[in-house]
Amino acid sequence: MTIINLGNLSNFADIYHTVPLLANTTKTADDSLVLASVLLSLVVIYLASKIGGEICVRLNQPPVLGELIGGVIVGISVLHLLVFPGTEGTETQSLLINFLQTTAGITLDTAQNVFETQREVISILADIGVIILLLEIGLESDLDELIKVGPQAIAVAFVGVILPFTFGTLGLLYIFHTDMIPAVFAGAALTATSIGITAKVLTEINRLSSTEGQIIIGAAVLDDILGIIVLAVVASLAKTGKVELSNVIYLIIVSVVFLVGSIVLGRWLNPYFVKLVDQLKTRGSLLIISLIFAFILAYIANVIHLEAILGSFAAGLILAETEKRKELLQQIVPIADKFVPIFFVVVGAKTDFNVLNPSIPANREGLIIASFLIIVAIFGKMATGLVVFGKSNINRLAIGVGMIPRGEVGLIFAGVGSSIGILSAANNTAIIMMVILTTFLAPPLLRLVFEEKKQTNISSE
Amino acid sequence: MTIINLGNLSNFADIYHTVPLLANTTKTADDSLVLASVLLSLVVIYLASKIGGEICVRLNQPPVLGELIGGVIVGISVLHLLVFPGTEGTETQSLLINFLQTTAGITLDTAQNVFETQREVISILADIGVIILLLEIGLESDLDELIKVGPQAIAVAFVGVILPFTFGTLGLLYIFHTDMIPAVFAGAALTATSIGITAKVLTEINRLSSTEGQIIIGAAVLDDILGIIVLAVVASLAKTGKVELSNVIYLIIVSVVFLVGSIVLGRWLNPYFVKLVDQLKTRGSLLIISLIFAFILAYIANVIHLEAILGSFAAGLILAETEKRKELLQQIVPIADKFVPIFFVVVGAKTDFNVLNPSIPANREGLIIASFLIIVAIFGKMATGLVVFGKSNINRLAIGVGMIPRGEVGLIFAGVGSSIGILSAANNTAIIMMVILTTFLAPPLLRLVFEEKKQTNISSE
Repeated sequence: MTIINLGNLSNFADIYHTVPLLANTTKTADDSLVLASVLLSLVVIYLASKIGGEICVRLNQPPVLGELIGGVIVGISVLHLLVFPGTEGTETQSLLINFLQTTAGITLDTAQNVFETQREVISILADIGVIILLLEIGLESDLDELIKVGPQAIAVAFVGVILPFTFGTLGLLYIFHTDMIPAVFAGAALTATSIGITAKVLTEINRLSSTEGQIIIGAAVLDDILGIIVLAVVASLAKTGKVELSNVIYLIIVSVVFLVGSIVLGRWLNPYFVKLVDQLKTRGSLLIISLIFAFILAYIANVIHLEAILGSFAAGLILAETEKRKELLQQIVPIADKFVPIFFVVVGAKTDFNVLNPSIPANREGLIIASFLIIVAIFGKMATGLVVFGKSNINRLAIGVGMIPRGEVGLIFAGVGSSIGILSAANNTAIIMMVILTTFLAPPLLRLVFEEKKQTNISSE
Repeated sequence: MTIINLGNLSNFADIYHTVPLLANTTKTADDSLVLASVLLSLVVIYLASKIGGEICVRLNQPPVLGELIGGVIVGISVLHLLVFPGTEGTETQSLLINFLQTTAGITLDTAQNVFETQREVISILADIGVIILLLEIGLESDLDELIKVGPQAIAVAFVGVILPFTFGTLGLLYIFHTDMIPAVFAGAALTATSIGITAKVLTEINRLSSTEGQIIIGAAVLDDILGIIVLAVVASLAKTGKVELSNVIYLIIVSVVFLVGSIVLGRWLNPYFVKLVDQLKTRGSLLIISLIFAFILAYIANVIHLEAILGSFAAGLILAETEKRKELLQQIVPIADKFVPIFFVVVGAKTDFNVLNPSIPANREGLIIASFLIIVAIFGKMATGLVVFGKSNINRLAIGVGMIPRGEVGLIFAGVGSSIGILSAANNTAIIMMVILTTFLAPPLLRLVFEEKKQTNISSE
């Protein structure tokens, strides 16, 4: 597009670009360019998610896996279109920004500023994506059903935290002679479960409301809470050399109070919510009021150092109990379709597969440790299915498999580890590989174990 | 929420906040806080839009006016919840960020960084809002109908540019003895028409597809193009002292080529689009493919120095010609409901009503000039209805009124003026007041003239 000779137009371009769309500000030199780069990123994200998703559907795989792989293809590992600076020490230039620089005819400095802001905007959109995903999942969940599976979920969650943590930490300590703190940290990174990926797959194969699905979701929610607690404790341990009991107690109390409190409060507020929505006359009121509610809970969860997604999940659970549930679900689907792919593509784009390259000697130690961590990560979670009690004819394998993916929570661990600087390159690589593999393995495995069960059921009928 | 004593938790909070949700980056210290502040802003925006909209509906006014007023209430003029730095020289602290600072327990420096990024994210969301609004408007428009009213729209648009520009510039020169360049600039600021506000009101009163509605939209689209051309010329004039003919020619050619080109290309591509969408099996494919298309056109429009909204409007026009139109409109409504209010609330929030305060002496000169500009702005556009030819039984008043609001395009003029520094405070204030008043006046007036016409029709039947 630079074929157009801008020549005398440069003055105009200067002026135009110093003016954002709406305000007469002086500091925001390139709002118009940021908008352009965000639009370009969204085009890449949507193309990646659609192409990946469609290929996976044709291979009888869940679309979400395609979105992740689509993200990997356009991200830091392959095409460098979507690059998030600082990821794994690489500072590769985003090809998208190069493209923008060429098409808009701007300087490298301007492009860098635009890049920084664009990255922030896309990250926030991805965050909103996972918040909306959890709201949708909450809406699709049945609170009474979830409470019914409560004891089983608690058992699954605790076993799924204790087993991988113990075996991971002890193995690193005694087999690989890792130092105490990195060993504990790596062990802790094994504990989390990614509710997002599993829930998406369960929705896709229509198993979210099954007993197995509800146990997995319940346990994953608990794991989210337990994971954050473990992270807090371990990070605190790493920084100060001792575990601060007050943190642990604070986090446990806050998490429980938040979830139970918002559900109790929500049940009490629900009739007023329905009454309010019925009285509103403007377009889209139900959805907006629900989003206000979800965002408030997400904000509260965020500022009390839990995860924002916990808040929107709670909002979904509460709103699912109103008579508006079906209408709301119908309206939220197009919103989710637009935001959720951003999240999964961004997760994929940030995942650096170059750490898997065994031809680089520095990666080899990591590869061996990674193999160990992956084995512990998979079998430690798969064993959780065995502790489900009091339910006959349950697919224990499916529950175990459903707990495998570490996803975004696992990546948070890797992030904290590298930012505190307590992990060696090998350990850090190993944790990231473990997260990648468990995340990518779970969707096809989950399909497989549920399909097999269905086959068995059909043949036994 | 600071009642919880964070005490020993500060270490954890430090660690937690140095880690973004997904990546192990080092530069992005407060992604989690930015997310919190964006969520908080969205809550405020949605509350403002809903409360404002509901009040306006009950007063028989268009909801969009309520969204604008809601924005004014939460913005720089009254509550200071949503503040965009640099607006009109004020550097007021956003109360939302104060709230975040208190609830999350962070330092002022961190809060400032968060504020800056949050502002960028909300601005981009508002931009995406108006892009999606124009896509929806394009989808609701009938291209054949628009071409049918083409000659009338062209007449209306040209008169609506020439009349206000001539009278505004000459009046300032000979009545107020303003210098040449500020006079030309203020005159130019009178030329634009805000397609967004008028189209929203027309949709609300179900008149978008009427002949009057189509003429207004057609003329407003042309005005958008003409407005940008005028702005380019005047800004260039202000900077260099002479009009650069190459700019004018370039912009005219590019605009025409872009619109006609994308429509021709779109008509040719449409069958392939339908075929493609029909073959896709993943959820929400139609919407995503359409957004990809709209964003690509918006990007192209942006980098060739037109407005992004022109691109998405063109995309809407093209997609409206496919058999998927109805389905797509249905799916885009919830998305529009979520994004468009952000745009209108942000426009309101950025509008500083303090410049209207006559008790401040510095405002008085501006008030007098403003009164003059407002009169020219209103009557210059209302006269456009008179030039509609070859249509009997047309509501000429409605067409004139529909062209009145300057909205976001007017604010771009004010922004350019103040950033080049060619406008005196009085002139700048006057332009902003003109934009505010024409924008706020048009929706109720438009309702009034259409209602009256309906009444007349009914009584004459």
